[in-house]
Amino acid sequence: MSAFTQIRYEVEGPVATIVLDRPEKLNAYTRHMMGEICAALDRSDADDAIRAVILTGAGERAFCAGADLTPDSGSGPFSSDEEVDDLSDERVRDGGGRLALRMFNSTKPLIVACNGVAVGVGATMQLAADIRLASDNARYGFVFAKRGIVPEAASSWFLPRLVGMQTALEWCYTGRIFGAGEALDAGLVRSVHPQAELLDAARELAREIADNAAPVSVAMTRAMMWRLSALDHPMKAHRVDSRAVYRMSRGADAEEGIASFREKRAPDFPGRVGEDMPEIYPWWEEPEYE
Amino acid sequence: MSAFTQIRYEVEGPVATIVLDRPEKLNAYTRHMMGEICAALDRSDADDAIRAVILTGAGERAFCAGADLTPDSGSGPFSSDEEVDDLSDERVRDGGGRLALRMFNSTKPLIVACNGVAVGVGATMQLAADIRLASDNARYGFVFAKRGIVPEAASSWFLPRLVGMQTALEWCYTGRIFGAGEALDAGLVRSVHPQAELLDAARELAREIADNAAPVSVAMTRAMMWRLSALDHPMKAHRVDSRAVYRMSRGADAEEGIASFREKRAPDFPGRVGEDMPEIYPWWEEPEYE
Amino acid sequence: MSAFTQIRYEVEGPVATIVLDRPEKLNAYTRHMMGEICAALDRSDADDAIRAVILTGAGERAFCAGADLTPDSGSGPFSSDEEVDDLSDERVRDGGGRLALRMFNSTKPLIVACNGVAVGVGATMQLAADIRLASDNARYGFVFAKRGIVPEAASSWFLPRLVGMQTALEWCYTGRIFGAGEALDAGLVRSVHPQAELLDAARELAREIADNAAPVSVAMTRAMMWRLSALDHPMKAHRVDSRAVYRMSRGADAEEGIASFREKRAPDFPGRVGEDMPEIYPWWEEPEYE
Repeated sequence: MSAFTQIRYEVEGPVATIVLDRPEKLNAYTRHMMGEICAALDRSDADDAIRAVILTGAGERAFCAGADLTPDSGSGPFSSDEEVDDLSDERVRDGGGRLALRMFNSTKPLIVACNGVAVGVGATMQLAADIRLASDNARYGFVFAKRGIVPEAASSWFLPRLVGMQTALEWCYTGRIFGAGEALDAGLVRSVHPQAELLDAARELAREIADNAAPVSVAMTRAMMWRLSALDHPMKAHRVDSRAVYRMSRGADAEEGIASFREKRAPDFPGRVGEDMPEIYPWWEEPEYE
Repeated sequence: MSAFTQIRYEVEGPVATIVLDRPEKLNAYTRHMMGEICAALDRSDADDAIRAVILTGAGERAFCAGADLTPDSGSGPFSSDEEVDDLSDERVRDGGGRLALRMFNSTKPLIVACNGVAVGVGATMQLAADIRLASDNARYGFVFAKRGIVPEAASSWFLPRLVGMQTALEWCYTGRIFGAGEALDAGLVRSVHPQAELLDAARELAREIADNAAPVSVAMTRAMMWRLSALDHPMKAHRVDSRAVYRMSRGADAEEGIASFREKRAPDFPGRVGEDMPEIYPWWEEPEYE
Repeated sequence: MSAFTQIRYEVEGPVATIVLDRPEKLNAYTRHMMGEICAALDRSDADDAIRAVILTGAGERAFCAGADLTPDSGSGPFSSDEEVDDLSDERVRDGGGRLALRMFNSTKPLIVACNGVAVGVGATMQLAADIRLASDNARYGFVFAKRGIVPEAASSWFLPRLVGMQTALEWCYTGRIFGAGEALDAGLVRSVHPQAELLDAARELAREIADNAAPVSVAMTRAMMWRLSALDHPMKAHRVDSRAVYRMSRGADAEEGIASFREKRAPDFPGRVGEDMPEIYPWWEEPEYE
């Protein structure tokens, strides 16, 4: 069923796992892999049975060692091979950013299980996920300035939000490789685990979400938090959450939420992301590359 | 004098304390309580003798256990009972958000003393305060997705600002109940205290502000920090603070500030929020619900 | 060569150091000093040999004790002496903010070595730097409300970004003086050092940047992180970083970056900030005071 060649897409109960699967290349990133991860996210979004998505790398050495710089990788080292004059041309678009923006629009929670080296786009692609866990052998590097380019994948938007401006700049100015402990202290990852226990920890968190939260609520929460926190006044959040609460509090999920709470049992929410999002979603117009 | 029935409004020197006062209901939130807290903030804003406001809950068990879900609470479980077609109708507005936006416009510093359970709107209403202290038995829960609704009270704007996106999403996706220690580690609260010492610690902080800071300076600082930090360029802050410093440095408060500093004595600032705000305040147009 | 009288501008290899040099006045800030620091930043920006700039104070007692309040300081205590009716007049502009905005536009990384007391503008001028180190005897105070004025130097934009709203407000409401430990815990500074080792630590960090990173990449990274993170959607970062990577990945710095990586040697980047910034820089229109 899966025609993927550089990733694997695995489903276990309500959790989909996307595995970057070029372990012999330290899961180095290619244009092809980018397309496959985006296609996998289309699949997880379209499948109402999926309640959370884990992103990890094959093997015990690397999550993703960065862009594949070898000549047979099918693209220029960091950007398109094609010569284009007009920089607003779609072909100019950075491959890391295409993925980050696709992740930004996911309706399912995205959890990264960083199982080893994460350098360049291997580090920046994680930033658009919701929650990051690391193995104790994880190492990160925002090495762009050492390679004569700049941080990509919209990481100048994501990274300071996650770790603050001071840390973001030091990591990007030095290009230094640092370990899981520094990533934890800075708030880049929420927890560090022995390598052999990493995936179980990610699955446990994914299950906790799947077992407790209404999927429509989760999809709405994801869009609201990322988008409304970036605006300039809390009234803009109030306009959206008032409408959402008004509609959803009359719905079947709210009824089940209150009933399961009163009956002290696990909830079984009927609402599906594919059909039951409140009519106000999406409340924004998605900007284009231009 | 006070016609309040679900809160108490108490004044001790320069500090007003608003107590959510339905301890037999774990201080559960109602439309009526919302109106009373807003009225109390009108009172603290209008009273130039008040220099800081504490918000706490009656009893030792709860700050606020969330929206009152019982049928006699006077409203639907989470939102208005009235059926409205046009979602821009005022009656659609979420009650938690009405309070959060009223808090956002306070001219006095708002300090939460979270004395126990704070769930749902009991957690989100705290976010629009300036500083949060917790008792060691405090517990928090952003439980909206477990109830089939979404985070309200403009918390998608406030919460990621306070604890970062990663933590905000994990708390809201899982709906998990967590303790004061996790709240402290994440930066949600600035300190944790034994239950019996919580209110004294909040009063001590309120007194430190009242004893040291010019009230007009504090009111200006409050509006500047919350509003200008959300804009997209520091020039926008420079335009406001240049005007404010230019005017205020020629005023009686600055004179007293420098004199008391030189004479190594406590200041006694003559400026009053009711009369002496610089003419540039407010420099913004407050957005409406629409 | 240097006509500076209130600062020193010293160059050692690729690192320029700007020393606030009025130790007998605890390096108190004047309009004249402001002009000299701005001129020094013009010099470091214009000199392609400079790869990082350190800002520190002369002596072991103070970084900068604030605005010079003595009558012979050449200006009013906090603002211009000149009487102006129109608050959009350039003469109204706050001197701390002029410096902060000049720092904001630096093309070289700015590292503060805070070697002692930093109060008022001595604290706020540090916020527009990229990275802050402190000596163990450093002390900070955002004392504006104690002096009857308000936080200046665009600090209502910078400070909450660095330490969060809760801490920013507490520091500014109380005007409290606090030590290097609290500054470290809050994320204001990235490390604390014995006084005698502070400058060496700052130089080591500056050297790490100079030895590893392409100067054009660093200048671009600086502008991208500060400016793009403040926008409301990651697409706006994607538009800029796509263009930058597309152009720079075809350039001589990227060639050297990849070659030095493959040959496991230190890079020697040919690109210069004065001549080789990609044509998209600057991609913004700088706002004016108005």
